[in-house]
Amino acid sequence: MTDAIAFSPDDIDAAARTIDGAVLRTPLVEAPRLSAMTGAQVFVKYENLQATNAFKERGALNRLAALSDADRKRGVVTLSAGNHAQALAYHSARLGIPATIVMPRTTPFTKVANTEALGARVVLEGESVGECAAKVAALRETEGLILVHPYDDPKVMAGQGTIGLEMLADRPDLDSLIVPIGGGGLISGITVAATARKSDIEIVGVQTALYPSMPAALAGQQPQCGGDTLAEGIAVKAVSETAVSILGQHDIDVVLVDEAAIERAIYACLVRLKTLAEGAGAAGLAALLTDPARFAGKRVGLVLTGGNIDPRLLSAIAVRALEREDRVVTFQVTLRDRPGELSRVAAVIGREGANILDVSHHRLLLDVPAMGATTEITLETRDGDHAERIRGKLEAEGMLVDRIDPLRQPGD
Amino acid sequence: MTDAIAFSPDDIDAAARTIDGAVLRTPLVEAPRLSAMTGAQVFVKYENLQATNAFKERGALNRLAALSDADRKRGVVTLSAGNHAQALAYHSARLGIPATIVMPRTTPFTKVANTEALGARVVLEGESVGECAAKVAALRETEGLILVHPYDDPKVMAGQGTIGLEMLADRPDLDSLIVPIGGGGLISGITVAATARKSDIEIVGVQTALYPSMPAALAGQQPQCGGDTLAEGIAVKAVSETAVSILGQHDIDVVLVDEAAIERAIYACLVRLKTLAEGAGAAGLAALLTDPARFAGKRVGLVLTGGNIDPRLLSAIAVRALEREDRVVTFQVTLRDRPGELSRVAAVIGREGANILDVSHHRLLLDVPAMGATTEITLETRDGDHAERIRGKLEAEGMLVDRIDPLRQPGD
Repeated sequence: MTDAIAFSPDDIDAAARTIDGAVLRTPLVEAPRLSAMTGAQVFVKYENLQATNAFKERGALNRLAALSDADRKRGVVTLSAGNHAQALAYHSARLGIPATIVMPRTTPFTKVANTEALGARVVLEGESVGECAAKVAALRETEGLILVHPYDDPKVMAGQGTIGLEMLADRPDLDSLIVPIGGGGLISGITVAATARKSDIEIVGVQTALYPSMPAALAGQQPQCGGDTLAEGIAVKAVSETAVSILGQHDIDVVLVDEAAIERAIYACLVRLKTLAEGAGAAGLAALLTDPARFAGKRVGLVLTGGNIDPRLLSAIAVRALEREDRVVTFQVTLRDRPGELSRVAAVIGREGANILDVSHHRLLLDVPAMGATTEITLETRDGDHAERIRGKLEAEGMLVDRIDPLRQPGD
Repeated sequence: MTDAIAFSPDDIDAAARTIDGAVLRTPLVEAPRLSAMTGAQVFVKYENLQATNAFKERGALNRLAALSDADRKRGVVTLSAGNHAQALAYHSARLGIPATIVMPRTTPFTKVANTEALGARVVLEGESVGECAAKVAALRETEGLILVHPYDDPKVMAGQGTIGLEMLADRPDLDSLIVPIGGGGLISGITVAATARKSDIEIVGVQTALYPSMPAALAGQQPQCGGDTLAEGIAVKAVSETAVSILGQHDIDVVLVDEAAIERAIYACLVRLKTLAEGAGAAGLAALLTDPARFAGKRVGLVLTGGNIDPRLLSAIAVRALEREDRVVTFQVTLRDRPGELSRVAAVIGREGANILDVSHHRLLLDVPAMGATTEITLETRDGDHAERIRGKLEAEGMLVDRIDPLRQPGD
């Protein structure tokens, strides 16, 4: 199968020289609190510190640097609404190369605006990836633009592989690398780079269970992909054939993580590392948290691939986590309909030392019991015991108290 | 004045050896997006990646390591509700030294719980720092506990100074270091370390304008301190006399930053660096953003001292920033009181491509105009033009539209 390997360790060394000084050499930092959680000695590679906050710059720049002068003048094109779009726009602008990014019409406009702000032309086209791909093909034909594929390109893969070089240069004693897989470019580069330096290193790929395209491809099957995932960046149906070949040759294991594990991992990055991980960026930690026994006692390197998470999504994840820990609790309290009841509720809560975060008092609405009023109160509590003590005190005042989940969703 | 200098560069080198392997050697990473914002070449020292997410471990551990065996058995005590408490608890537990932390009774219970979870005894005492200090004195008397002061201690200062050593080891070409000042321990250590390596390096201290205790002390004046600040960690009224002596001797300039600058800096860390900075941790960036001309063209090292910010505060800062950028907009829309009006509002907004984040429709409440209903709708918009276009379309439908600020506060 070596004929399918489109790049060598030497190509990755060359990529490292090419991107030196223009892409950050990100730090690999020990994460003692993740180690304490998991039993492994955990090291995190902070690719979210890149200028566009994701690793994609490495591959994009390595590809751009290989263009002929004539191709640089014509410009480049790609299909991406995510980190590859930002990376290509950023480095194209830096090098004076015109860049065109094709995105589906449904792309959130902050992504469009961010990419335009970096100097790229954004073309919104169609609803599906297929329609966008047709537009890319048309632009290549009519304008002579050069495609910079997000992953299925040996120069891109070699660029991403520099992450593996840097991790082993910083910590040659790493036993395992855990690497998220979308189309397979990153793990292909890292596998070629790392196994050339350290033949016995364990490399574990991660996909979300909703998009298990790489295990399917390795097994020669059609993947069953679909659904809303927190890890959009690795929700890829069509993996690179080159990646499949490299992973097969090196017998790389790919594990699947569910959405709850990804959510937990994003939150752990926030509170333990004080860093922002997008869903795909937290997938490696999700794999570690899902099966810590597999990695216990090992020196494990996690690639935190990117930090481009919507702040509102992040806030929702933080609040959900506080609810799971019984540190944010919402009670629906049904009161007798007479003056002073709400102040009695507030007095009980104040005496018990909880902070009131939100009050919604529905006295005029139609769905309250006859002669009563309901109040939804969200509290910051110490823990579950504290919340239950407050509930008991309210009930002792003659109020009806139900605990509710304000973040419940259909299907929860 | 050299007799007032309680520690030397050699003491800092010794501290570096003492803490090696037990405190993270945090990365100093270039921040291209902050450089683009400011015109300086900015490097960030990520002390928020420490196990307790702040730099305080360096000084605490250096002090603990100097204890006699007898003192280790008796244990240590300090007064802190913040990062020093966590740092002392963490390293005391690691070394098997009993630690007692005195905090005011008003301390948020998450801080109490976090410190207890690290294995320390927490004593809640009084409302004020003075009452806590009396309790610390009593515990030293009755239990023979050894005080580990948060900043006014040469071992602590020498420990914090290792940050300066590491920054100049990583980037010997730094022109300026910007360092937050609370009691003065950190900047004292960094000043002694950095000037010994590079005599012409510029060191700039930063305090919040609400707590200008260091400029006052340097001028021999009483400080005017008070008010709620985002930068609690540097809201210190009584600075170290040793620090005053060191800063005076080295002619260190101290600048003051206002709350708006601190808020903006916290947000810049979040969106540009994908990292969490507490208010004190962002103070250095606040100084840079306040006076970029002073640092333009220079290689500037910022010490991001800590990341322990309340997630709810962080969320509020993020939403306020989106509002300032007209990317989150709240309209109060007054409708005629007849069926179908709300759907017309939603239809207009949908056609204009804005996302509805929140709707509060007050049809039954008492403060609406006769025959009308008001709806507060919070939207995610592209920019100010987009928001104004939506307002115009709603008005063209015969609705009254007022833009409101849902985060307005008394005094805003």
